[in-house]
Amino acid sequence: MARPKPLSGFPEYLPRGRMVELAVLDTLRESFELHGFANIETRSVEPLEQLSRKGEITKEVYVVRRLHAEDNDRGELGLHFDLTVPLARWVLEHSGHLQFPFRRYQIQKVWRGERPQEGRYREFTQADIDILGQGELAIHHDIEVPLVMLEALEKLHDQIGLAPVLMHVNNRKLSEGFYRGLGIEDTLAVLQVVDKYAKIGPQATCELLVDELELSSQVAQRCVQLAGIRTLDSGFVQQVRELGVRHPLLDEGLEELVTLVEQAHHRVPGRLCADLSIARGLDYYTGAVYETELVGHESLGSISSGGRYDSLASDGKNSYPGVGISLGVTRLLDPLLARHEFVVSRSVPSCVLVAVDDEDSRGVSDEVAAMLRSRGVPCEVAPRADKYGKQIRYADRRGIPFVWFGGLVGEIKDIRSGEQQPCDAHEWSPADDDRWPRVLPAE
Amino acid sequence: MARPKPLSGFPEYLPRGRMVELAVLDTLRESFELHGFANIETRSVEPLEQLSRKGEITKEVYVVRRLHAEDNDRGELGLHFDLTVPLARWVLEHSGHLQFPFRRYQIQKVWRGERPQEGRYREFTQADIDILGQGELAIHHDIEVPLVMLEALEKLHDQIGLAPVLMHVNNRKLSEGFYRGLGIEDTLAVLQVVDKYAKIGPQATCELLVDELELSSQVAQRCVQLAGIRTLDSGFVQQVRELGVRHPLLDEGLEELVTLVEQAHHRVPGRLCADLSIARGLDYYTGAVYETELVGHESLGSISSGGRYDSLASDGKNSYPGVGISLGVTRLLDPLLARHEFVVSRSVPSCVLVAVDDEDSRGVSDEVAAMLRSRGVPCEVAPRADKYGKQIRYADRRGIPFVWFGGLVGEIKDIRSGEQQPCDAHEWSPADDDRWPRVLPAE
Repeated sequence: MARPKPLSGFPEYLPRGRMVELAVLDTLRESFELHGFANIETRSVEPLEQLSRKGEITKEVYVVRRLHAEDNDRGELGLHFDLTVPLARWVLEHSGHLQFPFRRYQIQKVWRGERPQEGRYREFTQADIDILGQGELAIHHDIEVPLVMLEALEKLHDQIGLAPVLMHVNNRKLSEGFYRGLGIEDTLAVLQVVDKYAKIGPQATCELLVDELELSSQVAQRCVQLAGIRTLDSGFVQQVRELGVRHPLLDEGLEELVTLVEQAHHRVPGRLCADLSIARGLDYYTGAVYETELVGHESLGSISSGGRYDSLASDGKNSYPGVGISLGVTRLLDPLLARHEFVVSRSVPSCVLVAVDDEDSRGVSDEVAAMLRSRGVPCEVAPRADKYGKQIRYADRRGIPFVWFGGLVGEIKDIRSGEQQPCDAHEWSPADDDRWPRVLPAE
Repeated sequence: MARPKPLSGFPEYLPRGRMVELAVLDTLRESFELHGFANIETRSVEPLEQLSRKGEITKEVYVVRRLHAEDNDRGELGLHFDLTVPLARWVLEHSGHLQFPFRRYQIQKVWRGERPQEGRYREFTQADIDILGQGELAIHHDIEVPLVMLEALEKLHDQIGLAPVLMHVNNRKLSEGFYRGLGIEDTLAVLQVVDKYAKIGPQATCELLVDELELSSQVAQRCVQLAGIRTLDSGFVQQVRELGVRHPLLDEGLEELVTLVEQAHHRVPGRLCADLSIARGLDYYTGAVYETELVGHESLGSISSGGRYDSLASDGKNSYPGVGISLGVTRLLDPLLARHEFVVSRSVPSCVLVAVDDEDSRGVSDEVAAMLRSRGVPCEVAPRADKYGKQIRYADRRGIPFVWFGGLVGEIKDIRSGEQQPCDAHEWSPADDDRWPRVLPAE
C-alpha cells in the first residue's frame, strides 16, 4: 500500500499535538464543571429535515446513509454541523427528566460538508456551554456564560501560554432598539449588513445599507456610527446617547450591556469590550451576543461565539430560552499547532523507562513498573534487553526523563542531568512537573 | 415542534449516565497512560475503498457525502467502523515521525450502518490499545496488551463495581499447528467454523466440519476436542498433548499461550483462562487472540477482543506487525445503564449551591462561588433569590449536598444531615468523597 495522503479539512495530530489538545480539553472540562455544568453528548446524526431548516446551512451538511440502503432510505440522516441544534432537540426529547435552569457543556466533533479549501475544516471539535430555562431564564445568566468561557480561556493563558483573548460583546436589543428608533422596520436585514462591518469597513457598510436596503444616507450613516462604537468600559453608553436616538428597547439593551461590561471589568479586567458592530448572522439571537478574538491572531476570526436566544427550542407547552457560547477548539488550536506555538515535554506519557537486563529477568522489570504504576508513576518497560546505552537512547528519543536499573531496590538515572542514584520503587516519586507530560508555550 | 423520538441504535444518556461513562473513560485513560500508551485520534472518515477491502464488512459502512455534491463525488468517504483500519492507515501516513515500538490508545466513536435492531449499535464508543513494531515486534507484547486491559477492567471493578471479567485466550499458531498436524490445509476455514463453537456446541461444530469442509469424522472430532479445552492454568498443555497431534507451529503456540496464562495468573489471578475454542473471525490475526466476558452478563458477548497481527499495515519498505485489544465501551455500558446497575451521587458537578439573599446582593454570592472554585470546589449560584426553603429544594432535587448562606464568612448547611455551621470560603473544603459526583454500584 502506498503512503496515504491526508484528507483536506480533516485535521489529525501526532501524539504531541494531541497532548496539547487534551490539555486544552481537560482545562475546559474542569472549568465548566467547577461552574456546575453537567456534560452530555448527543449522537452525531440528526434527521436531515432537522438540519436543513436554516436555509443557507443546508449546503454544508454531510448526508449519511448505509452503503446498501434502498433508494427510499437515502438522505435520511445528516452529521450535525454544530452542537446547538442537537441540544435543542435533545432538551425537547428529555425535558421531563431535566431540572431547569439546566446547565450543560458538550465537547464533540461536528462536521461541515465544505468544499476542500485552505483553513476550512470539515471535521472539527467544538466545546459549548449553555444554560436553558423552561418558560423563562433570568438575565444574569447572559453575564455568567461569557465569564465562564473567559475564565477557562484565562486558565489556558496561564497554564499553556495561549495568547490572551478579547471578547467583543453587543446586545441585539440595543441594535434593534436603535434601528427602530430610526424608523427602520426590517432590523434583521440591517444587522446582517452590519455583520460585515469588521470585514468591509464603515464606508462600504454604509453604501450597502443605502444600495441594498434603500435606507436614506442619513439613517445609514447613523447605523454605521453605532457600529463604530467600541469601549473597554461603560463609556459606550454616552457615545450611543450622543447619537440622539431614543427607543425603549435601546434603553433595555444598553442597561443589559453595561451590566455585562462592568462585571467583566471586575472579574476579568481587559478581556471584554463593548463592540456595537457585533451582530452575529444567525437569526435566533435575541439579546446579548459574543465574539472572541485571540490577541495577535485576529486573522483566525472569532474563536468563541454565542449569545442569548429566546425561542430556539419549543414544544406545544413550553419554550426553552437559553444563553450559550461555543469555543472552536480546532479552529483555535489547529493553526497554533501548525505554527509550533507549544512545546510538549515528551511524546509519550511514560515518566520512567524500566531497563531490562536480559529476557529472563524481564519479570523483575515488570514488577518494578507495576509498583511505580500503583503509586501513580507512568512508566514502560524496555522492549528489548539491549545494551544500557541503547536503552537510554530509547528513552531519550521519546523524552522519557528517567531510566530505572535493577529490581525494586535499584538505581534511577535522570538522563537530562546524567545523575544516577539508588532508589526504592516502594518510595521513589518524580517531581510533580515530571510525572506527566507538560504543555508549555514555545520559547 | 413535537417531542422528538430517539433513533434506534444511537444511544444517548442523561447527565447521570454520561457521568458513569466519563468515569469509565477516565479510568481507561489513566490506566493506559500509566502504561505509557500515547493518545491519538484519527478522523472519522476514510476513503471508501479503504473500508471496503474486507468483503463482508462492506455492508455495514455508512457512506458520507456532501448534500449538494456532484454525482462523481458520491460514495467517496465512509465513517470508520473500527479503530484498527484507521490506525493502519495513520501509521503508514506518519511512520516517519513515530518511534517504534509505538504504543497508542484511541477512544472514539465508530459507526456501523446496521439495520435498526435490538442490541445493535449504529454509533458506539470503542477504546483500543495497540503496540506496533516496525519490521518486528517482540512476543512479550502479546502478554502485555491483554494484561493492561485486564488491569483497567479490574480498576473499574474496584472503583465503580463493574462485574469481574473473564478473558478467554487462545493462539492462532496453536490451532493452525494442530490442524496442520492433522493434515488440514485450509486452516482458516476450520477456524471460521470453530468460531461458532461457543454458540452452537461441539456436536453441530463437528457436523459443519464434516459437511462443509469435508473433513473426515475422525479429524473433525479432534478439532472439536481441541476447541473443548478450557483451563484457568497451564493444564491445557497436557490436555492438548493427550490428543496426540504434533507440529512445530503447535509447539510454538503452546509455548506462547502457556507464558501468557502463567503471567496472567500471577498478575490478575482468576481473570484469564486458556480457551481453545476462541478463533476470532477476522483473517488478520496471526498469534494470540483474546475475547472477554463480563461474569454474570455473558449474554453481552465479548466486551473486549483483539489479538496479534503480523501484516495489517505494510508499505513497500516495511511491515508493521502489532498486537492490540479493543474495549466496546458502549456495548459494555449501555445495557448496564439500562438496568440501573450504577448509582451516581448527584446529577450535576456542583458540590455547593451558594444561596442568594436578593438580586442586589448576587455579586456577594458570586464572590463566594469564585473563592470556592479557586480552591477546586465545584459550585453554582442560586438562579433566583427565592425563599431559602425553595433554594434548598433546588439543591436537593439535583443532589447538591451543601448550601452556602451569607458572604465569604458565612454558614454552610449539609442538607443531608440538616447540620448548619459557620464557615469561611477561604478555608472551607468538602470531604474528598463529596467534592465531585461519585459513581457507585447499585444496591
